[in-house]
Amino acid sequence: MKSYRQELTFNIPSRRGFINITPQVEECLQKSGIREGLVLVNPLHITASVFINDDESGLHDDFDRWLERLAPHEPVTQYRHNTGEDNADAHLKRQIMGREVVVAITEGKLDFGRWEQIFYGEFDGRRKKRVLIKIIGE
Amino acid sequence: MKSYRQELTFNIPSRRGFINITPQVEECLQKSGIREGLVLVNPLHITASVFINDDESGLHDDFDRWLERLAPHEPVTQYRHNTGEDNADAHLKRQIMGREVVVAITEGKLDFGRWEQIFYGEFDGRRKKRVLIKIIGE
Amino acid sequence: MKSYRQELTFNIPSRRGFINITPQVEECLQKSGIREGLVLVNPLHITASVFINDDESGLHDDFDRWLERLAPHEPVTQYRHNTGEDNADAHLKRQIMGREVVVAITEGKLDFGRWEQIFYGEFDGRRKKRVLIKIIGE
Repeated sequence: MKSYRQELTFNIPSRRGFINITPQVEECLQKSGIREGLVLVNPLHITASVFINDDESGLHDDFDRWLERLAPHEPVTQYRHNTGEDNADAHLKRQIMGREVVVAITEGKLDFGRWEQIFYGEFDGRRKKRVLIKIIGE
Repeated sequence: MKSYRQELTFNIPSRRGFINITPQVEECLQKSGIREGLVLVNPLHITASVFINDDESGLHDDFDRWLERLAPHEPVTQYRHNTGEDNADAHLKRQIMGREVVVAITEGKLDFGRWEQIFYGEFDGRRKKRVLIKIIGE
Repeated sequence: MKSYRQELTFNIPSRRGFINITPQVEECLQKSGIREGLVLVNPLHITASVFINDDESGLHDDFDRWLERLAPHEPVTQYRHNTGEDNADAHLKRQIMGREVVVAITEGKLDFGRWEQIFYGEFDGRRKKRVLIKIIGE
């Protein structure tokens, strides 16, 4: 069994945002030389998500408004976590969008359907954040 | 390390529906010959989920009504994604139910509690969809 | 490839509660002797979650009140699943919080960011429940 590890770093200038990181994951997979196995991708933070969905800006707007409806940022005083912080909503939003994705690797490629793309979802940005890519296989 | 890959196909005649796919995953595991490892099961589409819960029709009705409350299909114009499409709600529902499951394989079997069953959750049906099963282990 | 399996058991005296199980997962990882790979942690039940977030009691209160808002326990008659049972809301809450986590193992340790901690989330407690830890790697 082989394993490979790499980190990506992001600094999103707004509180929330979505970035398509599929090219970086594919590049990492090429470097690993692994042909059959699994790749795990997750943020190393608890106010962000890695998820798989569509690369369509209208949908990303829908996600943002929908998450704000289900777990609003304001008023920040509605959350007991917000004593000295204001990011409780980010911890909640990340639970809906999920922490991590696990993707199959087949014949050296991400084993994806036509529209599947991997996103980093930021819910408490404006600072440096890291994403972990871990690949195991052969 | 061994790996095994198989696809399942579904064509659910309604917009939404849940199918218990545990027997197909078990059959795939038998074919793989893998005794210890992990199995990943995910749709190859972004308007569907694979999840683990109870095989009880009342609960499935509850899921459907609950998802409609959290991410309603109508009015379709509330979503910016719906320009020429009407499935934005399906992309949202899939985030709540999750994309994939990873299940332990122990002594050649799905390492499950008594009530755990794997479901394909369709949120934009009436066309052919595929599910990927990827097994790694020994 | 090596694999290792262990179960944890919990009996939370209230209907709902969160327990930090990171120390138990780390102990299990030490016993496994696995240095590079993946660990899967999931409940063997369908009314509980394993998830990764912050070990902060205010946030846990926020999670509990938020989940009650999105999938209320009362009135129990609103759910078709509740014929002889009253735990439909627990099945729904578990979908938001997720079933399982998959964590990278690097140099014999959980490959975590500074604040990542693994929690068992109980939504239908007051009885014995089990959590599965499955590790694969080398």
